[in-house]
Amino acid sequence: MSDPSNLSQLGRPAAPAASPEQAVLERVPNPHPGTVYLVRFTAPEFTSLCPVTGQPDFAHLVLDYVPGDWLVESKSLKLYLTSFRNHGAFHEDCTVGIAKRLIAEIMPTWLRIGGYWYPRGGIPIDVFYQSGRPPTGLWLPEQGVPAYRGRG
Amino acid sequence: MSDPSNLSQLGRPAAPAASPEQAVLERVPNPHPGTVYLVRFTAPEFTSLCPVTGQPDFAHLVLDYVPGDWLVESKSLKLYLTSFRNHGAFHEDCTVGIAKRLIAEIMPTWLRIGGYWYPRGGIPIDVFYQSGRPPTGLWLPEQGVPAYRGRG
Amino acid sequence: MSDPSNLSQLGRPAAPAASPEQAVLERVPNPHPGTVYLVRFTAPEFTSLCPVTGQPDFAHLVLDYVPGDWLVESKSLKLYLTSFRNHGAFHEDCTVGIAKRLIAEIMPTWLRIGGYWYPRGGIPIDVFYQSGRPPTGLWLPEQGVPAYRGRG
Amino acid sequence: MSDPSNLSQLGRPAAPAASPEQAVLERVPNPHPGTVYLVRFTAPEFTSLCPVTGQPDFAHLVLDYVPGDWLVESKSLKLYLTSFRNHGAFHEDCTVGIAKRLIAEIMPTWLRIGGYWYPRGGIPIDVFYQSGRPPTGLWLPEQGVPAYRGRG
Amino acid sequence: MSDPSNLSQLGRPAAPAASPEQAVLERVPNPHPGTVYLVRFTAPEFTSLCPVTGQPDFAHLVLDYVPGDWLVESKSLKLYLTSFRNHGAFHEDCTVGIAKRLIAEIMPTWLRIGGYWYPRGGIPIDVFYQSGRPPTGLWLPEQGVPAYRGRG
Amino acid sequence: MSDPSNLSQLGRPAAPAASPEQAVLERVPNPHPGTVYLVRFTAPEFTSLCPVTGQPDFAHLVLDYVPGDWLVESKSLKLYLTSFRNHGAFHEDCTVGIAKRLIAEIMPTWLRIGGYWYPRGGIPIDVFYQSGRPPTGLWLPEQGVPAYRGRG
Amino acid sequence: MSDPSNLSQLGRPAAPAASPEQAVLERVPNPHPGTVYLVRFTAPEFTSLCPVTGQPDFAHLVLDYVPGDWLVESKSLKLYLTSFRNHGAFHEDCTVGIAKRLIAEIMPTWLRIGGYWYPRGGIPIDVFYQSGRPPTGLWLPEQGVPAYRGRG
Amino acid sequence: MSDPSNLSQLGRPAAPAASPEQAVLERVPNPHPGTVYLVRFTAPEFTSLCPVTGQPDFAHLVLDYVPGDWLVESKSLKLYLTSFRNHGAFHEDCTVGIAKRLIAEIMPTWLRIGGYWYPRGGIPIDVFYQSGRPPTGLWLPEQGVPAYRGRG
Amino acid sequence: MSDPSNLSQLGRPAAPAASPEQAVLERVPNPHPGTVYLVRFTAPEFTSLCPVTGQPDFAHLVLDYVPGDWLVESKSLKLYLTSFRNHGAFHEDCTVGIAKRLIAEIMPTWLRIGGYWYPRGGIPIDVFYQSGRPPTGLWLPEQGVPAYRGRG
Amino acid sequence: MSDPSNLSQLGRPAAPAASPEQAVLERVPNPHPGTVYLVRFTAPEFTSLCPVTGQPDFAHLVLDYVPGDWLVESKSLKLYLTSFRNHGAFHEDCTVGIAKRLIAEIMPTWLRIGGYWYPRGGIPIDVFYQSGRPPTGLWLPEQGVPAYRGRG
Ligand SMILES: [Ca+2]
Ligand SMILES: [Ca+2]
Ligand SMILES: [Ca+2]
Ligand SMILES: [Ca+2]
Ligand SMILES: [Ca+2]
Ligand SMILES: [Ca+2]
Ligand SMILES: [Ca+2]
Ligand SMILES: [Ca+2]
Ligand SMILES: [Ca+2]
Ligand SMILES: [Ca+2]
Ligand SMILES: [Ca+2]
Ligand SMILES: [Ca+2]
Ligand SMILES: [Ca+2]
Ligand SMILES: [Ca+2]
Ligand SMILES: [Ca+2]
Ligand SMILES: [Ca+2]
Repeated sequence: MSDPSNLSQLGRPAAPAASPEQAVLERVPNPHPGTVYLVRFTAPEFTSLCPVTGQPDFAHLVLDYVPGDWLVESKSLKLYLTSFRNHGAFHEDCTVGIAKRLIAEIMPTWLRIGGYWYPRGGIPIDVFYQSGRPPTGLWLPEQGVPAYRGRG
Repeated sequence: MSDPSNLSQLGRPAAPAASPEQAVLERVPNPHPGTVYLVRFTAPEFTSLCPVTGQPDFAHLVLDYVPGDWLVESKSLKLYLTSFRNHGAFHEDCTVGIAKRLIAEIMPTWLRIGGYWYPRGGIPIDVFYQSGRPPTGLWLPEQGVPAYRGRG
Repeated sequence: MSDPSNLSQLGRPAAPAASPEQAVLERVPNPHPGTVYLVRFTAPEFTSLCPVTGQPDFAHLVLDYVPGDWLVESKSLKLYLTSFRNHGAFHEDCTVGIAKRLIAEIMPTWLRIGGYWYPRGGIPIDVFYQSGRPPTGLWLPEQGVPAYRGRG
Repeated sequence: MSDPSNLSQLGRPAAPAASPEQAVLERVPNPHPGTVYLVRFTAPEFTSLCPVTGQPDFAHLVLDYVPGDWLVESKSLKLYLTSFRNHGAFHEDCTVGIAKRLIAEIMPTWLRIGGYWYPRGGIPIDVFYQSGRPPTGLWLPEQGVPAYRGRG
Repeated sequence: MSDPSNLSQLGRPAAPAASPEQAVLERVPNPHPGTVYLVRFTAPEFTSLCPVTGQPDFAHLVLDYVPGDWLVESKSLKLYLTSFRNHGAFHEDCTVGIAKRLIAEIMPTWLRIGGYWYPRGGIPIDVFYQSGRPPTGLWLPEQGVPAYRGRG
Repeated sequence: MSDPSNLSQLGRPAAPAASPEQAVLERVPNPHPGTVYLVRFTAPEFTSLCPVTGQPDFAHLVLDYVPGDWLVESKSLKLYLTSFRNHGAFHEDCTVGIAKRLIAEIMPTWLRIGGYWYPRGGIPIDVFYQSGRPPTGLWLPEQGVPAYRGRG
Repeated sequence: MSDPSNLSQLGRPAAPAASPEQAVLERVPNPHPGTVYLVRFTAPEFTSLCPVTGQPDFAHLVLDYVPGDWLVESKSLKLYLTSFRNHGAFHEDCTVGIAKRLIAEIMPTWLRIGGYWYPRGGIPIDVFYQSGRPPTGLWLPEQGVPAYRGRG
Repeated sequence: MSDPSNLSQLGRPAAPAASPEQAVLERVPNPHPGTVYLVRFTAPEFTSLCPVTGQPDFAHLVLDYVPGDWLVESKSLKLYLTSFRNHGAFHEDCTVGIAKRLIAEIMPTWLRIGGYWYPRGGIPIDVFYQSGRPPTGLWLPEQGVPAYRGRG
Repeated sequence: MSDPSNLSQLGRPAAPAASPEQAVLERVPNPHPGTVYLVRFTAPEFTSLCPVTGQPDFAHLVLDYVPGDWLVESKSLKLYLTSFRNHGAFHEDCTVGIAKRLIAEIMPTWLRIGGYWYPRGGIPIDVFYQSGRPPTGLWLPEQGVPAYRGRG
Repeated sequence: MSDPSNLSQLGRPAAPAASPEQAVLERVPNPHPGTVYLVRFTAPEFTSLCPVTGQPDFAHLVLDYVPGDWLVESKSLKLYLTSFRNHGAFHEDCTVGIAKRLIAEIMPTWLRIGGYWYPRGGIPIDVFYQSGRPPTGLWLPEQGVPAYRGRG
């Protein structure tokens, strides 16, 4: 992860990386260090590839984290998520993997991800991961993504 | 179709027929002949088979009709719909075919069907058919089945 | 129907009649005669009996009418609807019959009824009837009762 | 478009084409030729690229058509839509273009498309196109995709 | 359960088994062993038979589990659920039984199932089972399936 | 109605009138005279008294009008509606009467009112009135107030 | 309560009892004794009488229980609920009383009831009762019945 | 509070008191003393006056309580709430004050009130008060009143 | 309006103009000239000032138009809407004025605007304007913005 | 913060301050000191500027607090929020900063804020902060703001 003083993507035209490995996650200092609060990103425009068939998969992702020393810079987060466009990954692995990458990069106090995948074979899969028990004193609303209904 | 005076299924244990062809649709006299009104059946428990793969398909069906001389007897309708359980049919053909069978059997003044099929390949198909322009003076509310949303 | 000058039920304790035939529908003069407007009653607490099994049936009824010389007195309407509690009637017949009784009693310019019955055999029946084409210049919103969903 | 007797994609592993131009739309004979009915496909997993920035765009597409001699084969439709993944197109042009391609390939009696694009700059764009006045006697429900709400 | 190295159903045409007993549940290694996370499958297309009358029953099922060493292979799960199509089972027994079979096959750290059955006699039954207290540190969102409304 | 050049209520503390008769409706010149457009006021805080029992009644009112030479000044409209607080009126009469008063005061090209009253005896009454056929070229969306549901 | 080996109502025509006291609740052995799970019945078609006025009351009831040795037989439950049709009871007493009767008859490990009554005087009453703290390890979703809204 | 044996308002015409101070809250014996259960009243028709401007305020109130020896008699509760019609009170004070009056009069085991006030200056205020920690063993569902949305 | 060949704002940092008069609306050639289709922009982030009090007003705007020779360039549209931030305008005038400005600049075949303003004094105002009858053959879905509810 | 005895803004015309720093938050004595209760303000009309681009940002804010000795005076709260109109602030910092300012001014027992920001780059950010663990005995409903959906 880059040093926050020389962000390479914010405020400039920046192409998505060719793969998650190549994507650069950037960070900025937490303006309220020592304060326990939650930041939620909702990313309804996520797509990756099925590692078996190569067909596109789609998901609605919701990321919650409690900043430690850093905030994730949001444009770099968007570009990181975009970098899965040509990347093959199973739903369970992909969702948990995004969380682990973010943990490694921004070292949050705590983080969780909800991955709400579009149905395959008529059956959607959701994946819910958190990095441990939420910190004491945190206000942690449910993500509240509506249940999948099928039809009717 | 049977004569209404000797209904074979109403008020008795009656097993579904093995196929739509074998299913017996029964009818009773319209208690308000000459009155233009609409009857709507909502059948959210419909299933048939994919004619190519043999895998089950599911649909939420809504049937609207304007009775002529006859009402369809509702238990026989349910058994008729149940008879598709082991029957292979494409969505478009199945939906329109149910309408045509009912038209042939109960000779309604007018009839329509909405077939709201569960997604395959992430893409649901709906089929909307009516037997012609609705009769003058009919009150014909929309079926109002919610749009398919995917996730999020 | 009673003369409006001596309402027998409004503002007094009044027991429901034992049957629809015995129920007295009362009326009061239309305060805006000659004005085309719509009155809607929503009665979600309707119950009658199945004429075959004697088991209770339930419906959510919505009545729309354009007053002529009279308004239906609302307490007598409620008692009339309550009088179906021990009355056996098929869904289609019951719904249309309520409309026809009201037409006979209050002679509206126009009337319609939507009967939204609770499911039997997993399949609810709705019945939609109107007394003819709506009058010119009438504003006639949809009843907008949500579609039956089953589960999920 | 291929001859329906030798479908190249249905029931076989089939990779999406590299571009819409290369994608092959396939068709099968309409099982109810001469009957006016509507077929609706809902495709909530559509993505293309912004022709200016190269960034991904996302849309929820709903396609309605009245078959003429042909039905579109649904797997080939899915692969066609998938072929936009690396294709740059403006929202208005892309939506109308999909409709025109389908019209050219399956020669429907009538067709329309609703393209519901995800917001850019906080403002989503929807595009609504139809090939002309709907045919007489067609039952044509609204697509009913919920309005964009922003937050709150 | 099969060894994961020779999956018999994934990526091949595979017919559903004739009964749950004959259905083969397959598994793949958990890509994040030792990580506590939740996987949710939503299966709105489930049907079985009433063991008394032989009539079809329908349910919307939601399965949540915390993987141990294995993930359930999703195609085999779908085929397992499909194998109930000609199987007679009471709602309570069927729902809990599916959970117990999965527990036996994939040995999850924890599992729960919500079975949301379509109404019979106007009264739907829901069944909620979990294998014990959820593991410490798990994020476990509610399933959030809407309450049954009847009509109105 | 007052002359627009000396509005008595706008931008000053102004107490509601003691009765509708005493309330002063004020008007301002239409900034787009000759343009056909619709103005909608939604007033969910309306209350009056039952003329028989003196008990409070409540309604959610929606007023739509096409301005002629004048716009209704919105603060005076609010105070006019507030003046019903101690006024006895039947639902049908009250709703239509508000419309007629506004027509007399601001002489709109066209006007309609929807009065959605809270239930009495478990049965809510809605009243829908318009002053005639809507003008040609007007865009007139439905008011879209949700149907009354009772419980469940 | 009857012995489960000779159920008197299941699978036969059975009339509702004339009063709750006369109604026979039947039971069948729990197919998963020793397993902690929840069974939910949703009964949106409940009606009784006001003990003061004799007017009908309506409620939407939701019953949750953890079976001990017995399951309640669902047809007998339905007939028991139907037996309140001519029975006078206050909302609070009726709701809690149903719970206590079921506890006495089927001796569940735990039970709760939510009674959601239709409004009287514009104010609905809900009653929530449970037999004690829920058992350890139980999964107990909220009933999630929507709040009463009045109008608008 | 009156002795329950001579209720002054139930089953008789009764005018609202001129002020909350003059309103008489009546009570009846709890039919299930010693049982911990919750009673919820939803009163969407509440109005009072702004103590500064004298303008009407409106609120949707939800009252939950666990009865001790007494139930509040619901008609007297309605009349009590109605007595605020000409009473000036700030939102926070009014909401908490209603709770405290009820506690003084019916001495419940526990009580809470949610006051959901209509917006002023575009910003609605909600007030949530309870008399202490809920009693052990109580089932206490959320009130579930939807969040204020503004527009869109 | 600028010539489309030298767009001044697209793809560059561009500050909003200080007033609507100074804002530059830009346009690009319609890629489907001669085709009747609808473009919808939803702008939930609109704010202006009250011309009397100087206090901010907020609106959710939805713009529909049928392109003639030009499409409005979406970034310039956003900047135009942003230019109202320090501009005083009454709701009715502002909404219709935006439509007229767009008509003058991009000369569409047809255009309409729905302005859904946040409540003032508890009463929101909506304004609906269109430039005339919609063109023949246009598909014109309702905007479907939910009705204002107040509370509850 | 001003002394409550000489409020400078309540009940008078008062212009918003030019910046948050200049805005004066006023307070009034808590009418129920020593009582633990929650006050919620919902402010769906919040706007500030992006500190990098100067473009407007929008948020829906919900503030919950438990009063200590003081209540915040609501008009001054509104003017304080309005003062961000020309103020540049990042989402995370702005949301937490509003909470901290209020804590400093009204010294509540406890406070939390939910900031629900409109999407940028298709990804909305929510920020959730509270001043510590909620006080014992507080009733603290979820804010229940619906999840962001994107489209479809
Ligand atoms: Ca699928
Ligand atoms: Ca329509
Ligand atoms: Ca979506
Ligand atoms: Ca049923
Ligand atoms: Ca409509
Ligand atoms: Ca369903
Ligand atoms: Ca955006
Ligand atoms: Ca909004
Ligand atoms: Ca929860
Ligand atoms: Ca209901
Ligand atoms: Ca009522
Ligand atoms: Ca307001
Ligand atoms: Ca909760
Ligand atoms: Ca419409
Ligand atoms: Ca309301
Ligand atoms: Ca966006």
